[in-house]
Parts: sequence; C-alpha cells; structure tokens
Amino acid sequence: MQLSLNNNGGYRGKGFDLLSSRRLSVGDTVKIETEDGEILGVIMPRYESASDEYLAVKLKSGYNTGVNISRIRSISKLAAKDPGPVAPAIQIPENKNLPRVALISTGGTIASKIDYRTGGVRAALSASELYSSVPELARIAWIDPEVLLSEYSENLKPSHWSMIAEKVAEKIGAGHYRGVVISHGTDTMHYTAAALSFALQNLPVPVVLVGAQRSSDRPSSDAAINLMGAVTFASESDLAGVFVAMHAGTSDDSVAIHVGSRVRKNHTSRRDAFESIGATPIAHVKAGKIELKSNQFQVAKRSNKAELKLRPAFDARVLLVKYYPGLDFGIIDYAVGAGCRAIILEGSGLGHVSNEAFPFLRKAIEAGVMVCMTSQCIWGRVRMTVYDTGRDLLDIGVVPLSDMISEAATVKAMWTVANTSDIQSARNLMQDNLANEISDSIPID
Amino acid sequence: MQLSLNNNGGYRGKGFDLLSSRRLSVGDTVKIETEDGEILGVIMPRYESASDEYLAVKLKSGYNTGVNISRIRSISKLAAKDPGPVAPAIQIPENKNLPRVALISTGGTIASKIDYRTGGVRAALSASELYSSVPELARIAWIDPEVLLSEYSENLKPSHWSMIAEKVAEKIGAGHYRGVVISHGTDTMHYTAAALSFALQNLPVPVVLVGAQRSSDRPSSDAAINLMGAVTFASESDLAGVFVAMHAGTSDDSVAIHVGSRVRKNHTSRRDAFESIGATPIAHVKAGKIELKSNQFQVAKRSNKAELKLRPAFDARVLLVKYYPGLDFGIIDYAVGAGCRAIILEGSGLGHVSNEAFPFLRKAIEAGVMVCMTSQCIWGRVRMTVYDTGRDLLDIGVVPLSDMISEAATVKAMWTVANTSDIQSARNLMQDNLANEISDSIPID
Repeated sequence: MQLSLNNNGGYRGKGFDLLSSRRLSVGDTVKIETEDGEILGVIMPRYESASDEYLAVKLKSGYNTGVNISRIRSISKLAAKDPGPVAPAIQIPENKNLPRVALISTGGTIASKIDYRTGGVRAALSASELYSSVPELARIAWIDPEVLLSEYSENLKPSHWSMIAEKVAEKIGAGHYRGVVISHGTDTMHYTAAALSFALQNLPVPVVLVGAQRSSDRPSSDAAINLMGAVTFASESDLAGVFVAMHAGTSDDSVAIHVGSRVRKNHTSRRDAFESIGATPIAHVKAGKIELKSNQFQVAKRSNKAELKLRPAFDARVLLVKYYPGLDFGIIDYAVGAGCRAIILEGSGLGHVSNEAFPFLRKAIEAGVMVCMTSQCIWGRVRMTVYDTGRDLLDIGVVPLSDMISEAATVKAMWTVANTSDIQSARNLMQDNLANEISDSIPID
Repeated sequence: MQLSLNNNGGYRGKGFDLLSSRRLSVGDTVKIETEDGEILGVIMPRYESASDEYLAVKLKSGYNTGVNISRIRSISKLAAKDPGPVAPAIQIPENKNLPRVALISTGGTIASKIDYRTGGVRAALSASELYSSVPELARIAWIDPEVLLSEYSENLKPSHWSMIAEKVAEKIGAGHYRGVVISHGTDTMHYTAAALSFALQNLPVPVVLVGAQRSSDRPSSDAAINLMGAVTFASESDLAGVFVAMHAGTSDDSVAIHVGSRVRKNHTSRRDAFESIGATPIAHVKAGKIELKSNQFQVAKRSNKAELKLRPAFDARVLLVKYYPGLDFGIIDYAVGAGCRAIILEGSGLGHVSNEAFPFLRKAIEAGVMVCMTSQCIWGRVRMTVYDTGRDLLDIGVVPLSDMISEAATVKAMWTVANTSDIQSARNLMQDNLANEISDSIPID
C-alpha cells in the first residue's frame, strides 16, 4: 500500500500556498528563519494525516521536524532537488584471494533509502547496490549478492522462512562459500534467526543475519558497520551455525554476534537494540577482528565434513498467547476450533496463568493441541514446580520450556508440529535443546 | 485446586519403601549419604507427577533437590518433623509517635509459607502474621494491617483491581494514614500498579505495592527488606502517587521505588526482577533512608489538601495481541464478535504488524473497537511515521501509544473504555499522559 501524493508533496492550504508562491518543491534544500531560530534542511513531502499548519523538513542529522508555517519569517532555496542517486553500475570485484561469501538480500532498513514521494523509508536497494554502497566489503570478501525478497520484515511469514532456508541450503550446496550473510529487516529478524536455527541443522559454515536500525542516508546509520561485521564473521569465524550480527553498543566500533535462537529486539530505535537473552553475545567483531566471548553455548566448529540437514517445513498454525489479568480465554477455544496445532503461553512469573484458564487448556490438550509455557518476564527460567499454579498446569499437561524465549518457542513449535507425526514426539522435541534455545537447567527445584 | 497426598507425602514404590522401613516422615531433617556425597535437608512431599525413583529434599539454601533413591547409601534422621510455626498472637504495637500506615494484604510470596502437604509455597500468612514476622517494622511505623485477599497474583482480575482501589480510598478517607502499603504477588503486581495509577487520581499520600521474589523461609528472602522499604517510603516520602517497592540489585541493602505505570517484571526469579522501563527508579530506600533519584517523571508532592478522585471501574473486554510472523488475525475477528471494546497491539519494532492484518484492523475499527499500538521491544518508543507500514496503520485509525509499555496500555484501555462514553474521547484519553505512563516525545520525526 502506497500513499498517493499530489504534485506538491501532498501539501494543501498554507503549505501549498507557501511552496507555490516561493516556487519551492519537495526535495529542495532550504534555509528557514523562524521566531525560534534558523533551520537548514530538505523539504519533505507532507504526510497525509499531518496538519496543514506544518512544513516537514529533513534536518542534516537525518531526523525530520515539523516547522509551524505561521512562525516562518523567511524561507530561501539553497539548492534545488537532488535528482536522486543513480545506482552505479559497479562491477562486483572477483578477488580470488579473498574468501567467497553469499549475500542474500530479503529487505529491510539495511537495504532501504528515503522515498521522496512519501518522505518515508522504503525497502528498495538490491544486494548489489548495497554492496556498492559499502565498498570496504571488497577488501574483506568476494561477495556474491542475490536479491531473494524485498520486504519489510513485519510482512514476512513462516513460508518465507522456508524459502530463505532453501536458498541458504542452495548456496551451501554450491560448495564454494566460506559463509552466508542474509540482510533482513530488524522487526522480525530474531524470528527468522530462530527459524533458520531449526531449519538448517548441522551447518558446515556460519549463516549470519544482519540488519540496520538506521537507514544508510543517516549519518548515524549502522548499515555499513553491521554488514562488515557480518561478512567478517561469515568469512573468518571458525564457528558454524545461525547468528545475528548487530551493533554492540552506543559507540560506533563494535558488532555483536548473537546465537540465532537466543536473541531478541529489545529497543525500538537504538542501534544496539538486539540482545542475547540469558547470555552474552558469542563474539564481537571490532576493527575487523573477531573477539570470541566466553559463554555457555555449545556451538559447532566450521567443518567441510558437516553435512547440512535441511528441514524447511513450518506449520504456522501456532497461537502465541501473552497472559494478562482479564484475558478472555475464549481465544483458546477459537484457536482450537480454527485448527491450531500448538499454543505457546507467555505466562507470568515462573510460568503461570490464572486458574480460570485451566478448563480451556484441558480442552485444548484433549483435542490434541500441544500447549507449552514460556515467561513474559523474558529473562530467567520457567519453573513450574515451585507454586501450586505451576504444578496444576503441569498436571493438566502443559509443557514447560525452561529458559526458551517465547519468540523462539513460537517458531520452534511451528517447526516441531511440521516435523513430527505425533504429539508425544512433539512434546519431547520441544524440550530437547536443538540449537542452544534452552540452556542448562537445575534438574529439580 | 490442591493436590491430595497420601500419608507418606505422596511417595509410592521405592520412596514409600525407604521412608516406611526407616520410620521417616515428610518434614524430618535427615542426613543422606550417596555415591556423590552427603546431603543435609528436610524430606519434602513427593510431587505427584515426579518419578518414584527420587526423594525430594529441601536443602538449607531453600532449594529443593531430587535424590536418586538407588544411589542412597545411608539415610539417618537428625530431627523429627517440626510441628510448624504457631502464629504468635502478637499485639500490634500502637506507637502514637510513629507515622501510621495502612497495610493491605492481597497474597503472594511475600505473604507465603511452605506447605508441607504439597511441598510448594502457599499464599497463607495474614497481614498481622506478616507484620509479626518482620518486627523491625514496629520501629518504622504504626501499622494497621488488613487482609483483603489471599490470592496468587496470577489469579487476580480487573474486578480485584477495583476492590483494591476502593479499599485504598477507604483507608485514605479515614484521614490518619501517612501512606498505604499493599502486599501483592509479583506475577501481576505491575498490572495492578498500573491499574491503581489510573483508578486513584490526585492521591494525597503514597500508595506502595510490595512483593517478594523468594518466600520468607529462604535465607535469601527479600520479603523483609522490601516490606521495610515500602513502609519507609509510604510513611516518610514527600511524594504522592502509586509506586512499587522491590529489591534494587543483587546486594541485600537497597529497595528501588518504581513509578507504578512504568514498571515491569523482567526476570522470573531474581530479586531485582522489577525494572522501571525507559527510566530510572524514582528513589532507592537504603539503610532506612530515602534517596531520590533524578528522573524525568512529574510526580505530585504529598499534600493534605489533595482530594482523591476514585475511578475504580475497569472493563476487561480488551484484547492484548502480541504480533509474530504467522499470527492468525482471525483472533481479532473472534474478539470483536465476542464484544471486545479495545485491542492493544504489541507490534514489532517501531509499531508494526504485517500488512495482512490491515483488513482485520479496519473491520474492528469500523465496528467501534479502539485499536492501539505498543511495541514488543519493551524499550523505546512507537514511531509510526517512519515506515510505510506505520503510516498505513495510522491511516487505518490505529492509535500510537508512544513509549507506554503494553502491560500499562492494556490496563489503561480497560480503564478508559469503562470511563468514557465515546470512541473519540477514549482515543484522546489513551494518548493523554495521566500517570507518567507516557514520557515526553519528539513531536514529529
């Protein structure tokens, strides 16, 4: 869905009058004097829901601001609209002395540019444009880019996970890649990372998802450093498995490498939004060097002998329910009726829901639906033998998932029901640690 | 729902034989020698789902462990079962030189003890038992305890929030309390804190919720320190409003005071599980002293002249939906059909859901349901003008809730729909900052 804008960037009323009378267009760089001071920036299109009283201006910092038109004392054009970047027809350098890396582009901010029609950010750049915009990559690896998808990650579905897994398997099957990098929107990158952790077993090389929190037209963009960190880890690390490479802190020089099944987006906008849960990142990439961190994970070593097992099937019929006081448990009845095969509860505390849920859960389990428990606390571990509520839920047949985060649990349930033939196997598989999604637990407490 | 246990604490098979032959009972303190070493502890009842191969033993640390019976070389009784504490008939001291504080008990770990029938922890202690178990309180305040509820907090519902709000108003109406303390289970304490933040407006005194992550029979219990911190803040602070008092760190000496609308349980078991989101706690209580922290909140001062406005109504017909790839948006249709009045989306990133949701959301909004957006990232702020997806959702009529956490947003929606007569007022009220649930935002970006 795109916004349609008129020729004046959607401006009406005061904004339209101002732009017409001064022969200004969206995209022009202007100097504006107001009662409060001077602003330099580029005129952005008016967003359709915004007030007619404001002119939208993109500042040098990359942020947009709204300027109250009635407070404008003067406005002058410093430069006419930039006709926009023409994608340079860069030849991907084939440097046979460098490790070869496959780069699969799926979309997101890392592959985005400002759309001067809507003033927003659009997933648009191809993998080769991405590559040409970060020429430093040519010194790290010989990169083969391929555009698989061009989607905001909030629009990705389990069927896309299968498609990405199959594409990775194809790249690995070619036999000449030291690693695979997947550029991805950050909104659901951790869901895809978990999905690939289950779908791609016994990986011979690292598979590294990478995104950006800030688009590359902003000075604070993390696109280039994240991409360089991902490519460095994919080509040079001794480890194999599925990882996420994202900015490690508020400084500019370090990229964290997270285990794909234990990472979560914990901030809407910070560049270091991604955090390993209940663990440190497995490594940092800093100044082109990989620094391994001590941690509790069992991560395989890179090995030419490892034979990839591709298990790309997912069954989306899984309901994630975050518990809260007053929740209408009728949604469980609805989901069971709609053919749901598993329910992941995001319980309170150590893994609890109201006792009013018990009859609904019992009915779901009797209908053959697998019901599992995680915690909405995010950190810590479900322990259902401490309080009566937990014990009652265990008796009903709810499967406790230890410290698996609910996002990974939801993805794993979609994968498990697609890859098992009976409920007992599914229950067992959910509790097996396949890809570091569960860390060691105290056996009884 | 309680477990029924036979006379041997539920033991059968090997466990039953062992206990019978040695004339041991549940509750006895024993020394056990195994191949792996020596264990001192109290025999706990066998949990019904547990294997017959294990004896459950409560260690001095407070943790339970399972001892494989076939590995037991010897077992000897050190002490017979403690007949259990008899609640001492302590006279609440009425020290008229001390500030008077009302203590309302609702249940939870802070008011719990080990149940030797089930081996679990039960909400059982009355407020006066609680008081008598922390005699230091008598030096801080003259406390009037009252048991309002005795529930695990996962079983509390919005109707309980109304009941608690009314009880607080009654205490404040009495005119002689410097503050009110509410003991509460930690599972949903942050939901109740948000509820009271909206239901109790213009408070003249502090209202402090307090819980414990570890029951008071464990050496590491935080029950006493949290309670002392809460009573100190309630009686001595110059501030008014709804707060949560919980352990501030892994050390033993500091209690954090969180603003009630901005706090979240972020760990299943740690004592410092509660964290202020997007803010520091407003104060710490350390060695009996209140240390105010600099922060961005607008918190009212304590004032005899403030007249409490009690708005205790909540309408539970609100659906909180955490978005994930593959979510069946049919639950939105179901909820609208079931009479749902508001939907809180916990979107990805800056406040997004898949574009497949759009028709379902449009239908819900056309049916008069208020739909609001928060982020599952937890930290940060929803900003729906940056990407196409957010703009499309705004156009559909989704209300962005800035940095309100989804738990507070769900509670506020339940309160808002119960306290407004039309949808536009409800939408406006959701976006008004009533109790620090929204912090200042950049106007346009």
